Amino acid sequence: MTSTPDCVSPVQDYLNQLHRDFADLKDGNVATYIPELAKANPDWFGICLVTCTGTVYEAGDSAQPFTIQSISKPFVYGLALEDQGRQKVLEKVGVEPTGDAFNSISLDPGTGRPRNPMINAGAIASAGLIDGRTPASRLKRILDMLSLHAGRELSLDDAVYRSESETGHRNRAIGYMLRNFDILAEDPMPAVELYFQQCSVSVTCRDLGIMAATLANRGVNPVTGKQALRGEYVENVLSVMGSCGMYDYAGEWIYRIGMPAKSGVAGGVIAVLPGHLGIGVFSPRLDARGNSVRGIAVCNEVSRHLDLHVFNRPSVGKSALGFKATAAGINSSRVRTAHEADALRKFGDHIHLYKLRGNLYFVTAEHIVRQVMESLDSLEYLILDFKVVLTLNESACRLFCQLLLKLDSLGKHLLFTGADSNPLLRRYMKARLGSRYETLYRVFEDSDLALEWCENRLLESSLSGWQFERAADRPDYELFQGFTAAELGRVIPVLERRSYQRQEVIIHIGDAASHIYLLARGQVSVLLPQQGGARRRLATFSAGMAFGEMAVLDRAPRSAMIVADSEVQCDLLSLDALQDLDATEPVIKIKLLENLALGLCGKLRKANRELALLE
Amino acid sequence: MTSTPDCVSPVQDYLNQLHRDFADLKDGNVATYIPELAKANPDWFGICLVTCTGTVYEAGDSAQPFTIQSISKPFVYGLALEDQGRQKVLEKVGVEPTGDAFNSISLDPGTGRPRNPMINAGAIASAGLIDGRTPASRLKRILDMLSLHAGRELSLDDAVYRSESETGHRNRAIGYMLRNFDILAEDPMPAVELYFQQCSVSVTCRDLGIMAATLANRGVNPVTGKQALRGEYVENVLSVMGSCGMYDYAGEWIYRIGMPAKSGVAGGVIAVLPGHLGIGVFSPRLDARGNSVRGIAVCNEVSRHLDLHVFNRPSVGKSALGFKATAAGINSSRVRTAHEADALRKFGDHIHLYKLRGNLYFVTAEHIVRQVMESLDSLEYLILDFKVVLTLNESACRLFCQLLLKLDSLGKHLLFTGADSNPLLRRYMKARLGSRYETLYRVFEDSDLALEWCENRLLESSLSGWQFERAADRPDYELFQGFTAAELGRVIPVLERRSYQRQEVIIHIGDAASHIYLLARGQVSVLLPQQGGARRRLATFSAGMAFGEMAVLDRAPRSAMIVADSEVQCDLLSLDALQDLDATEPVIKIKLLENLALGLCGKLRKANRELALLE
Repeated sequence: MTSTPDCVSPVQDYLNQLHRDFADLKDGNVATYIPELAKANPDWFGICLVTCTGTVYEAGDSAQPFTIQSISKPFVYGLALEDQGRQKVLEKVGVEPTGDAFNSISLDPGTGRPRNPMINAGAIASAGLIDGRTPASRLKRILDMLSLHAGRELSLDDAVYRSESETGHRNRAIGYMLRNFDILAEDPMPAVELYFQQCSVSVTCRDLGIMAATLANRGVNPVTGKQALRGEYVENVLSVMGSCGMYDYAGEWIYRIGMPAKSGVAGGVIAVLPGHLGIGVFSPRLDARGNSVRGIAVCNEVSRHLDLHVFNRPSVGKSALGFKATAAGINSSRVRTAHEADALRKFGDHIHLYKLRGNLYFVTAEHIVRQVMESLDSLEYLILDFKVVLTLNESACRLFCQLLLKLDSLGKHLLFTGADSNPLLRRYMKARLGSRYETLYRVFEDSDLALEWCENRLLESSLSGWQFERAADRPDYELFQGFTAAELGRVIPVLERRSYQRQEVIIHIGDAASHIYLLARGQVSVLLPQQGGARRRLATFSAGMAFGEMAVLDRAPRSAMIVADSEVQCDLLSLDALQDLDATEPVIKIKLLENLALGLCGKLRKANRELALLE
Repeated sequence: MTSTPDCVSPVQDYLNQLHRDFADLKDGNVATYIPELAKANPDWFGICLVTCTGTVYEAGDSAQPFTIQSISKPFVYGLALEDQGRQKVLEKVGVEPTGDAFNSISLDPGTGRPRNPMINAGAIASAGLIDGRTPASRLKRILDMLSLHAGRELSLDDAVYRSESETGHRNRAIGYMLRNFDILAEDPMPAVELYFQQCSVSVTCRDLGIMAATLANRGVNPVTGKQALRGEYVENVLSVMGSCGMYDYAGEWIYRIGMPAKSGVAGGVIAVLPGHLGIGVFSPRLDARGNSVRGIAVCNEVSRHLDLHVFNRPSVGKSALGFKATAAGINSSRVRTAHEADALRKFGDHIHLYKLRGNLYFVTAEHIVRQVMESLDSLEYLILDFKVVLTLNESACRLFCQLLLKLDSLGKHLLFTGADSNPLLRRYMKARLGSRYETLYRVFEDSDLALEWCENRLLESSLSGWQFERAADRPDYELFQGFTAAELGRVIPVLERRSYQRQEVIIHIGDAASHIYLLARGQVSVLLPQQGGARRRLATFSAGMAFGEMAVLDRAPRSAMIVADSEVQCDLLSLDALQDLDATEPVIKIKLLENLALGLCGKLRKANRELALLE
């Protein structure tokens, strides 16, 4: 993006405006309980918004370092969950809001278990659950984890750490209370020191935005693409932020702002809308509850303005069904004879094609499955295409597996295409189908190949005597339809027979068009090379058909390659011979051109029909 | 859906299995504190799951009536918000979780304000905020509101109501405490009675499922399509359910199950995943906290099994960009001359077409806007097509409006198509653009028409002397390209000139094809009638071009209608005259057929290129 103001994104404009609007808000005071924090410039003010697609927008002092303080709590809690598992962590730290202030001790009267990991007692208990043989290795693991969330290497602010440690008597008291209840099993001081250190990690507002977006993105940093926290624990981290993150303001926060959030006394705030974005705000002036005044105000404004409340979401059920058709309307790129094409028009509604897209989870998969169940009467073959699916979760896999078993029990076929990009589906099917996996989980590279497979089976069952592989006598050529025996006798000697090996390139891209090819034996495919070496199939011809005629007619260089799919024999009609016919055999030339035009009409009708359906 | 077991949806199978699995769970006891409740059959067990797309799945005793009890609280709170507005309601009832049990009085020590609307004190205060001149009218308004949520007419269970009222001394005490603090302004007894009545409304498990889905669907009952609660308050109702709905179990509930929820002592439970679905469970045996044992267990299992945690959501940012292309690849259905088509291939990348889909809110709109901002260099015209967009919110409208202003300031054009289905966009633009609305907010019915408008402007600026409207001399006809003067002299007399009025139908669907039409003056469009009377444009031809040739070539009946867009003059070449040429003028016939084939080649290449891009 260029830097001239006109070329700045409207989202960036909005953030700049937001920064100007709230820069005048000078309520509150910089924290002084740790001497180092009191040195902050009260006017510092940064805003950073990061989407789950990895775009970072920032305004103001977004690069100013400050200490993370209590915003470290949810992240360290996440590491504790990774290290110890959910059960063991829940035994040591509860998840109930207290309705009390941030520095209340709030231990469960019976068990001494801190009520939640967002109060200091719960955070110190969480720090005590971090794996590592030495204090230094535990600190390093916390720094590494926070760095993964931020997407850059973070380090301690030593001055703040020393200041925290020198004044942290209340937290030492909490440490010994936790030791007293056996929540901390050994000397509590290392856990308390680790807690001081995690609070003293130096971050910027930009870091906070990216860290928040990482939580919004199921633990994957959307800028670096690296997993910072195992996905299964993200919901737990966000839950404690949602229910306890803003201390005695938690209920009102979720009511008004509607995003899990956490603040720190250095003036940072993060807020997270799962699946959407993360927000980081930095402004050191705090309110009486210890929250950044501008931080709260900006989150409130952004949530209202951008409609970010987690409980105000539109229905997503229909969003994964991109396109639905039957083989009466959309067909494979296997070129069919007129007779075959008629049969597909007539019986093609037994083949259903669904192109899925976006995110597949329970409700979006349910919508697909319901559509299928409602059209069971006509359905014999179902193709589910996953090529442009963004994500797929286990509950969607389960539903598709159950659909597969159900269709199989009814004698119907389910085919999956483009599913390679989602290894989860394959793993799930393998685990669930066991010995039936090989026969039941029918996978095709793309929907074109799957359609062809279904069409061929349908033609086999609906056209008596139809056979997939065949050879053509010259008189059978579509291009010679309507020719008298005498006309055939005059045109056939003009043809030149050529043979090709399997996979031999018959026509190269860019070649001048010198011949029309009549396919006597075997099959050929028109292919377009793609980026990355793959080849996209545009058409497949079988014996009796003509190919390569378009470039001969419009004199364009060859626009795609044509490759022999098998041993192939062709009869070539040269451009010269074709032109000679004008004078020598005008009637034959007219019949040839009429047949060529007829073939083009058929192809154009098919393409137009498919275009209309795809739009 | 048929009722044979094989044709049952896998989702229904899952619910049946769930019902079987948890029917064995017989822990807990039926509530006895109201004598009428003790009469419930402890084995009753119903499950109902309702998606935001309106599908209802139910298992077990889903039609068994019981009383709604505390599940009425969030709904009545919603009605209080509608009646009084957010500010006034917040003055009377807080939104902070208490960590206390359901029947704790929990008034704020200073103001006497109940801590939240899910405890009895807050619910009675909410009942006191319901508008209505008489107790009967207030009750009727609550019944009407609950009935809208359930999608059927609900009524009181009088026996339960009398029983509640006879034993509700604690709630009367709460009423007088609220009166004492002026939370209730008058005699508190009517509010307490109304509360007893709201708790005594008779519902089924199916009702609960649909009510929950109505909250999940932003207040619109997904089965009836009727708005039951104003959308802006749904997030508040779900917030108090999320933070306080399960009393002292709220933190753990959101941690484990991750859905706003509410239970009632008759054994009902609802849980809501916004945008996805609602769940209702009914089973009268309660745990020590007063929650249905099976209700909790089923919600827990369903959430885990179907991955329903509200804080575990995949990234949605990319889900609204369905398709992106330029006019170098995709063009309007205005048929172009070879010269025009070449210019569009060359300069068409100045016209960008985005087809949007799914839900447009901040992050999905941001993804679109970012794509646009990153391709500003080449962009002159941008078409945003909203035809298959599901929902659009104000923050997305705002972003598109800002993009419009930005592009305008850069001398670029933004066109909106298919946006009629989203009146919000028009209203927003009107309000925001003021006097510039008419000139700036450029709307086209569909992307085809918008593409044509952009293409014409692009051709005007890039082809010197190009003009949109023109007439053709016969020698200019594309079909006569390459004809000698002598040949022209022989073919022109065969043509028959016909004139058509504007909007006159030139060719009807189903007609036998008897002529090829050469357009001398004006323009014609090929149209396909759609359901509902609309006509879909397939092609528009201008002077010099031929139309109606395909059906003549393949002898199919006319498949679309052709209508004069203006005063039109055509030269008709009849099938008979065409056939006569075989014998009399074979060279002319050959040239005609070659030109016809050339035209078909061009159309087929365009169609194939567009198909490849659309796939």
